[in-house]
Amino acid sequence: MTETTDDLSLRDVVAALERLYPLDTAQSWDRVGLVSGDLDQPVRRIHLAVDPTLAVIEEAKQAGADLVITHHPLLLRGIHSVATTTAKGAAVTELIVNDIALYCAHTNADVADPGVGQALAEACGLSGTQALEITEGQELGRVGDLPEPLGLAEFARRLHEALPRTAGGVRVSGPADGTVRRVAVLGGAGDSSFEAVRASGADVYVTADLRHHPALEAREEASLTGGTPYLVDAGHFASESLWLPGLASRLVTELGPAAARLEVHVSQVRTDPWDFVLGAAAPEHTQGDHA
Amino acid sequence: MTETTDDLSLRDVVAALERLYPLDTAQSWDRVGLVSGDLDQPVRRIHLAVDPTLAVIEEAKQAGADLVITHHPLLLRGIHSVATTTAKGAAVTELIVNDIALYCAHTNADVADPGVGQALAEACGLSGTQALEITEGQELGRVGDLPEPLGLAEFARRLHEALPRTAGGVRVSGPADGTVRRVAVLGGAGDSSFEAVRASGADVYVTADLRHHPALEAREEASLTGGTPYLVDAGHFASESLWLPGLASRLVTELGPAAARLEVHVSQVRTDPWDFVLGAAAPEHTQGDHA
Amino acid sequence: MTETTDDLSLRDVVAALERLYPLDTAQSWDRVGLVSGDLDQPVRRIHLAVDPTLAVIEEAKQAGADLVITHHPLLLRGIHSVATTTAKGAAVTELIVNDIALYCAHTNADVADPGVGQALAEACGLSGTQALEITEGQELGRVGDLPEPLGLAEFARRLHEALPRTAGGVRVSGPADGTVRRVAVLGGAGDSSFEAVRASGADVYVTADLRHHPALEAREEASLTGGTPYLVDAGHFASESLWLPGLASRLVTELGPAAARLEVHVSQVRTDPWDFVLGAAAPEHTQGDHA
Amino acid sequence: MTETTDDLSLRDVVAALERLYPLDTAQSWDRVGLVSGDLDQPVRRIHLAVDPTLAVIEEAKQAGADLVITHHPLLLRGIHSVATTTAKGAAVTELIVNDIALYCAHTNADVADPGVGQALAEACGLSGTQALEITEGQELGRVGDLPEPLGLAEFARRLHEALPRTAGGVRVSGPADGTVRRVAVLGGAGDSSFEAVRASGADVYVTADLRHHPALEAREEASLTGGTPYLVDAGHFASESLWLPGLASRLVTELGPAAARLEVHVSQVRTDPWDFVLGAAAPEHTQGDHA
Amino acid sequence: MTETTDDLSLRDVVAALERLYPLDTAQSWDRVGLVSGDLDQPVRRIHLAVDPTLAVIEEAKQAGADLVITHHPLLLRGIHSVATTTAKGAAVTELIVNDIALYCAHTNADVADPGVGQALAEACGLSGTQALEITEGQELGRVGDLPEPLGLAEFARRLHEALPRTAGGVRVSGPADGTVRRVAVLGGAGDSSFEAVRASGADVYVTADLRHHPALEAREEASLTGGTPYLVDAGHFASESLWLPGLASRLVTELGPAAARLEVHVSQVRTDPWDFVLGAAAPEHTQGDHA
Amino acid sequence: MTETTDDLSLRDVVAALERLYPLDTAQSWDRVGLVSGDLDQPVRRIHLAVDPTLAVIEEAKQAGADLVITHHPLLLRGIHSVATTTAKGAAVTELIVNDIALYCAHTNADVADPGVGQALAEACGLSGTQALEITEGQELGRVGDLPEPLGLAEFARRLHEALPRTAGGVRVSGPADGTVRRVAVLGGAGDSSFEAVRASGADVYVTADLRHHPALEAREEASLTGGTPYLVDAGHFASESLWLPGLASRLVTELGPAAARLEVHVSQVRTDPWDFVLGAAAPEHTQGDHA
Repeated sequence: MTETTDDLSLRDVVAALERLYPLDTAQSWDRVGLVSGDLDQPVRRIHLAVDPTLAVIEEAKQAGADLVITHHPLLLRGIHSVATTTAKGAAVTELIVNDIALYCAHTNADVADPGVGQALAEACGLSGTQALEITEGQELGRVGDLPEPLGLAEFARRLHEALPRTAGGVRVSGPADGTVRRVAVLGGAGDSSFEAVRASGADVYVTADLRHHPALEAREEASLTGGTPYLVDAGHFASESLWLPGLASRLVTELGPAAARLEVHVSQVRTDPWDFVLGAAAPEHTQGDHA
Repeated sequence: MTETTDDLSLRDVVAALERLYPLDTAQSWDRVGLVSGDLDQPVRRIHLAVDPTLAVIEEAKQAGADLVITHHPLLLRGIHSVATTTAKGAAVTELIVNDIALYCAHTNADVADPGVGQALAEACGLSGTQALEITEGQELGRVGDLPEPLGLAEFARRLHEALPRTAGGVRVSGPADGTVRRVAVLGGAGDSSFEAVRASGADVYVTADLRHHPALEAREEASLTGGTPYLVDAGHFASESLWLPGLASRLVTELGPAAARLEVHVSQVRTDPWDFVLGAAAPEHTQGDHA
Repeated sequence: MTETTDDLSLRDVVAALERLYPLDTAQSWDRVGLVSGDLDQPVRRIHLAVDPTLAVIEEAKQAGADLVITHHPLLLRGIHSVATTTAKGAAVTELIVNDIALYCAHTNADVADPGVGQALAEACGLSGTQALEITEGQELGRVGDLPEPLGLAEFARRLHEALPRTAGGVRVSGPADGTVRRVAVLGGAGDSSFEAVRASGADVYVTADLRHHPALEAREEASLTGGTPYLVDAGHFASESLWLPGLASRLVTELGPAAARLEVHVSQVRTDPWDFVLGAAAPEHTQGDHA
Repeated sequence: MTETTDDLSLRDVVAALERLYPLDTAQSWDRVGLVSGDLDQPVRRIHLAVDPTLAVIEEAKQAGADLVITHHPLLLRGIHSVATTTAKGAAVTELIVNDIALYCAHTNADVADPGVGQALAEACGLSGTQALEITEGQELGRVGDLPEPLGLAEFARRLHEALPRTAGGVRVSGPADGTVRRVAVLGGAGDSSFEAVRASGADVYVTADLRHHPALEAREEASLTGGTPYLVDAGHFASESLWLPGLASRLVTELGPAAARLEVHVSQVRTDPWDFVLGAAAPEHTQGDHA
Repeated sequence: MTETTDDLSLRDVVAALERLYPLDTAQSWDRVGLVSGDLDQPVRRIHLAVDPTLAVIEEAKQAGADLVITHHPLLLRGIHSVATTTAKGAAVTELIVNDIALYCAHTNADVADPGVGQALAEACGLSGTQALEITEGQELGRVGDLPEPLGLAEFARRLHEALPRTAGGVRVSGPADGTVRRVAVLGGAGDSSFEAVRASGADVYVTADLRHHPALEAREEASLTGGTPYLVDAGHFASESLWLPGLASRLVTELGPAAARLEVHVSQVRTDPWDFVLGAAAPEHTQGDHA
Repeated sequence: MTETTDDLSLRDVVAALERLYPLDTAQSWDRVGLVSGDLDQPVRRIHLAVDPTLAVIEEAKQAGADLVITHHPLLLRGIHSVATTTAKGAAVTELIVNDIALYCAHTNADVADPGVGQALAEACGLSGTQALEITEGQELGRVGDLPEPLGLAEFARRLHEALPRTAGGVRVSGPADGTVRRVAVLGGAGDSSFEAVRASGADVYVTADLRHHPALEAREEASLTGGTPYLVDAGHFASESLWLPGLASRLVTELGPAAARLEVHVSQVRTDPWDFVLGAAAPEHTQGDHA
């Protein structure tokens, strides 16, 4: 492959990304920005994904990509070895051996507008949203109203249609016919934001990775106030993957004419870890013994 | 209801429980033992449940129970108010107003033999198990072998049959036809024990409450070693509820003749927080794009 | 007792208390507000006390009180059980069984104006006082001047007259004839504020619960500067009980006409833990061998 | 004063003290041993006291002492200045300018046998005592039985007779006629050992420096078990001063013939910080409104 | 020596020092101000040094000094004993026995203008400097430009001429003929400020006490950016001793006419710990195998 | 280069290294073992160095090495990026791009016998050494005696001859003619072990990276005990490089016949960061003003 003087460099793309998702808007514990690569290397094909898994890197390699942009950091916890004896080491080694740069935009993409939260809000059919909470000075999550009230099952069905298919599906806590108008959304793991959700007056909280104890305690609190907010666990991967198409177009726009020959693809690998589910109950089979 | 001199007292039952599940075998961060009640109050009906939710307490009250025994502590985090403005306060108030004592056996029940881990191991069809790991000197989780190898989907189907039905079902990560012989089990949230599972040589890890990042990282590590251990998320409530029937019989046995007039019931309330799921994939519909 | 539509609800009283003593003026480590009860329950008789002891709760029950308001929190440290095997559990159980709500105003009452500090300042005969120190943005303690200088023993005698009688009495460190004009006061335990007292130029520090080492070190420092500030330990209970009568009238005023049928009583139980003292020295018997 | 070759050196005395009170038996947070002086300086007169106050140092200087031995450390918290602008600096300067060495035996003296705890036990009339609790491997406090049961007031009166007079006297919590047979003692501040006291089965706990909240909570717990253990606050200084006479004789014995010309005196300065008390109640005036 | 009423007191000198080097400009971990002495003692001779070593104190004693002023605190870590069994105790004892006060101005002198940083900047030939970094609100270190570019060896040679001779000399990392124009300086240990140095655009960093790992990592980072910043380790003592002559004149000026009879001397003791070096390489012998 | 079936694999070499320097003998904070590479890659040439700098990696690449073994970890602090914008990222990228594995044996090599400490002890002429201290159960440093006493300058001269030449040379604190017989050694930074050195009775402490304050405080303490232990700062790189030749031979021996075609080279790059020194004093020019 011949490198021409018109090629975009990784430096150019990184600069554009950091205009879109400034590094200083990431949470203090987060690790965002360039993970591998050389700023002088050319970038002709970009691959977008939620997670930098080995399968995603292989897909990027097959696609001839020079750069992978993911939502989740590969090295959130610092590493002390890149030997191929660990999956993180194998991923780093694959990236370097194949001259594939990796860039991560995580909590700085969550809080961007438009960003991950906004993409999920749109998939829920919300408009005119505002921040769910302010964390380290950044607006996290979104709250807004549906154009008209919906039953909880119908609301969840529409959201499910907007999401990529995953084996785990969309889990719902609340009565199928519960009324939903005000909606709080937070892409990814939402265990820590129940207090903000209650303060927002939302009828339903759309997020992911809810564990037994926080979810059950939230349902117990909700039982004191008429049963809301209901819960929708949309899947960590699915809820955040919605952001990728918009990222592709915004990045091309931001790069301007220089991006004329750039190709940007969204990964087809579903990085949700689950492959199949046994015995999940559809809304029409919901049992009534929940008290 | 007339109290007779033959009645068991709460003191008697607590003593029996602490012989079965000694308090000093609980993990240091745990909060087990008597949560409400007076040691001198009589106990004629006992209600067993995984979680002390308001619905469980109402069920116990309807059943005329004097004592509720749960696996999960009501007050794992200390409380500073019992006003009914919070769900914890409302639960405490309901218990006291209705003269219902509450007793919790949590990590001391996890490590007991037979206990929570052993009940889950039996539901998986394991025999001759040993500890998965040693934590604070106690044996946590179990590892053992199936009588004969099974396909992963078949293994999960049999486990699903043994569990109470919940809306969330049983989630599986791995190929439907993957071979499973050695099995590690840990009731409840299993995110923190992947290292022990890998060291155990298990083909599959049966646990619950697995979140996206730990599960995905475990699958990435597994990809370096032929794909195992596979993952089965059996549901937090479901995986731990298996322990309750055995608790009923062991408690009656431990109390001996004094328990002649005692009634012990297992709650019918499913405290899993989910009500229905949209779009979960059955094993035969598993998509092949997971790389 | 018939509940009429005119009855005040606990919700009304709590709202009035939180106007008088806003929750966000409490120190960060403190636990103030409603401890037991239901916001919808009626309130006809209120009982005021420094400490929510079992004796105080029994006294409130005998008096037919619906609400106890105390200065000290019952549950400053979070509790994990309300079983009657502990005193805290027994108190919570007594409150709930007898439908008595409990509300605590602690450091938010200390810093209020008028509040605990101001009540003690007035008992000392001070006027025109200002804050002793600023802690977490709140004014804690008071400093002011007597209308005319007094001998230390005479000053202490007048304060003793203004305080409720307790077995421990009022302890004084300093010469009986030492001259006192500027006075620093801090209700409750005052060990941590000696630096602010020295900076205030006070001749005497009126507080309580002084321990040997802090008191002796303060006296040693004072010996470098002419012997002041002297110390008066007025008793923890006694120094804070002065606030209760004012609380009664302010609460009635704050509730307005709705309080027309409300009864408010101050507890007669002295919750100072001491019952008698042997060998305490009166000022005229002070020995001269102190240096 | 002429130094002769027969003089004891500070090195000799320190060696004897460290045989009696080994440094490694002190608690980890404590600071014991030699605080000022030169190991080669001669020691002819030793002055013993509870606290190294400026008055004690002046008394030692007047007495021509070369060495002061105290129970409480002068520099428990490290100092960054010895300028005379602070009391600690003034004390260090006085010691050095007057060639007076200072040695402290604190928690290593508490746990010694005989030591501070044993001296207090004897003053209570106990014999055949055992440890109250084990802390960092050392026996702290003592528990034993009286030869015959006594009324609480009579017990306190006898203890008061055995103690040096202080202005604060001896404070008692419990009924004057309560029966006392088993006694727990801990010299100095005893707030942290209530759990051990309850476990010991003691009828009364003799200690000092008890603050309102721990004492009141202990009394509340005691109310669940018949009212015991009662509390006796004997005064921090007074309860620990009992150890000094025994120290004098044991030190002389330990030094053997070399101590022939050594003089050892116990300080006459009472370092209890209180000078007088107003309104303390004698046992016969105990009021009955304590519930 | 006769004390006259015209004598300066230590109080006067301390006041002047605290005007020049306000205590509240010291870093929070630092311990500055008066370490020994009495504010009322007269001061006729002052001795200035970097470190309060036993040799410096002996020199001050021989010189008849009443006050030693040092840059480094004697008691940065708090002490619990002043016995002569430790060097710190021996130093304190020597100071007190010889009536020599000690005053330390450390990080408050570092950040003063003029102060330690400025003195080092001037020795480097810099003018028009600004702060290297802001720490706890104070300006630490200096950055400025040389009047004209110099070779690295020539720059270091000129600095070496301006410094007191020490056995360790001046260590340099970088090519002898590297070009230096912009210079960052930080007296004393400079390991923690490499990031600020890189941000300043300096060609060389003059500081001291650089250890292997931080220095080598800084050189590795520098290799990515043309080799700068180079490093000059001027010696901890030497780099800070430059401040002493200016201190002498500023203190006399600050004291005004009252200082007419005051003598101020700078110590001749080099407190750099090294006595000689074997095999150090002069610039002309630099080997070329460094990469 | 053709890979033959006789080639050693990285797996073989790692296994041999972990027999020589077991991973579990490293300190808990350390990060040792394989840093980059694939266990299945062949190893024909090994390069040994103290530090994995970019120059060392370039040297290894020029030499056609497959594996670099260093004493210092490349990634002691975890990294979150391997982009070439940082020196650590550039090093990792260079290693992976050039198929060079990196292995680090750090504190596990320090404590090995023979290991880093023993190599330094031998360079000092010691025999019959024992551990200087026990840290986390491992023997760290060595103490032993010279065959006959030497003057300090002569001792340092002999050590200097045994060390690789570095610009910084060997720094010595103590009189040139001081007598040295007992020697404590600790390769690398020795600031934290002065207490063990004093307890060892050593006349001189040979280590490196000593900073001003610890070294000066050690010299002050030494002044109370006749001036010893003296200090020799041999340079961090130099003191640890002595271990490399022995590593080469031990590794070949450990690998046995399989190593027949293996080449092992010691790096010629001096990774000491200093290039030249101005004004260092030779022993004959030591100035006498140190007091």
